[in-house]
Amino acid sequence: MTTINIKDRLLSKNDQFALANREIFDRHGIWCCNLISAPGSGKTTLIERTVDHFADRLNIGALVGDLDTENDSRRIAAHGVPVYQIITGGACHLNARTIGEFIPRFNLDQLEVLIIENVGNLVCPTSYYLGEHHRVSLISTPEGDDKPVKYPGAMHTSDAVLFTKTDLVPYVDFNLKAASENALKIESSLAVMALSAKTGEGMETWFDWFESHAKKHSSPDKSQHRQ
Amino acid sequence: MTTINIKDRLLSKNDQFALANREIFDRHGIWCCNLISAPGSGKTTLIERTVDHFADRLNIGALVGDLDTENDSRRIAAHGVPVYQIITGGACHLNARTIGEFIPRFNLDQLEVLIIENVGNLVCPTSYYLGEHHRVSLISTPEGDDKPVKYPGAMHTSDAVLFTKTDLVPYVDFNLKAASENALKIESSLAVMALSAKTGEGMETWFDWFESHAKKHSSPDKSQHRQ
Repeated sequence: MTTINIKDRLLSKNDQFALANREIFDRHGIWCCNLISAPGSGKTTLIERTVDHFADRLNIGALVGDLDTENDSRRIAAHGVPVYQIITGGACHLNARTIGEFIPRFNLDQLEVLIIENVGNLVCPTSYYLGEHHRVSLISTPEGDDKPVKYPGAMHTSDAVLFTKTDLVPYVDFNLKAASENALKIESSLAVMALSAKTGEGMETWFDWFESHAKKHSSPDKSQHRQ
Repeated sequence: MTTINIKDRLLSKNDQFALANREIFDRHGIWCCNLISAPGSGKTTLIERTVDHFADRLNIGALVGDLDTENDSRRIAAHGVPVYQIITGGACHLNARTIGEFIPRFNLDQLEVLIIENVGNLVCPTSYYLGEHHRVSLISTPEGDDKPVKYPGAMHTSDAVLFTKTDLVPYVDFNLKAASENALKIESSLAVMALSAKTGEGMETWFDWFESHAKKHSSPDKSQHRQ
């Protein structure tokens, strides 16, 4: 009983910080999207392709969580967008309080989209709301088409699931139809996409989804500040 | 401070159960090996190949952790070994107390090796000692050669790291030399192996490692009980 109570209180404290983050995003007209996946599912590569695609159309920034190393933020920064690395030092997820500490580092009058790349972990990050408008889970094809049913929390709390690395389908045991059905069986409201950031297959569908949500939530006046 | 104290107390409680498990393993001459990896790195397939290989030489049993589904235990049971599925319901790791509850289900007078397949998560399971003699981390080649430095806890607490799915190396961005160096940079005592359970490449090295540890820890009298 004690453990459950402590967990409830921690989550509720996190939610308070998350709601404060959300209030800042909404006040400044910033769309926030939280990416969740296992290690190596392609979150960083997806962000690299996405910021390149929208380079002259959206002011995007990124917060990147990892247990250790600044590898990912360096990769993203090379594409000319503001990015900060959050090294959790062992913690298995990002929390809303830490996100809140990093938000003021961005130029909020210019920023239209904040992408959060969570710690590579398909379990714990699903329990921590960060104030994002949308949550996207990535499952790469080498992980297997059974993963949506094995990680139901990620499906339940996400708005979209991306099956990534479709270029590897010929070499791995992955059935896209089964994967999609497994995802929708857990959460029927999910937007399901399949893509390869390497070959470009399916990326237009992702870009359309991304842009439609960004446009809906980000402030239209910001286009005058485009970098 | 409070959070740290609670965590210490929880870990210490877990360690008490882990030491009790270890005492049972040692008393009954059972070698216990705990497999840790991200989702879809190939733990279940490795277990399937391993129990097949040792079918007439070692009495192997398995405990399999997942957030949900009995898929993995069904796959392993089809190879004719005793196996139990532990559904954690959302918990991101197996704990020693739960393992202790499942140990009596095995015939301990016959069992020589217990393989634990942990929840697919390269972070949280590393903090929970289950009483195992050896811990093995798996990183699949599609995850990337940088993963050892991004998940140092898994490297620090493991005795061996297996780079799996080497059959995919031609199609992904993975340098085995860099991956090995990254792993050894974090933990120089690691046994480093690379293998493909699909093609069989590197499996003999794994089988040798596995058998040498099994023989060292399991009771020699048990061969008379071979099933």
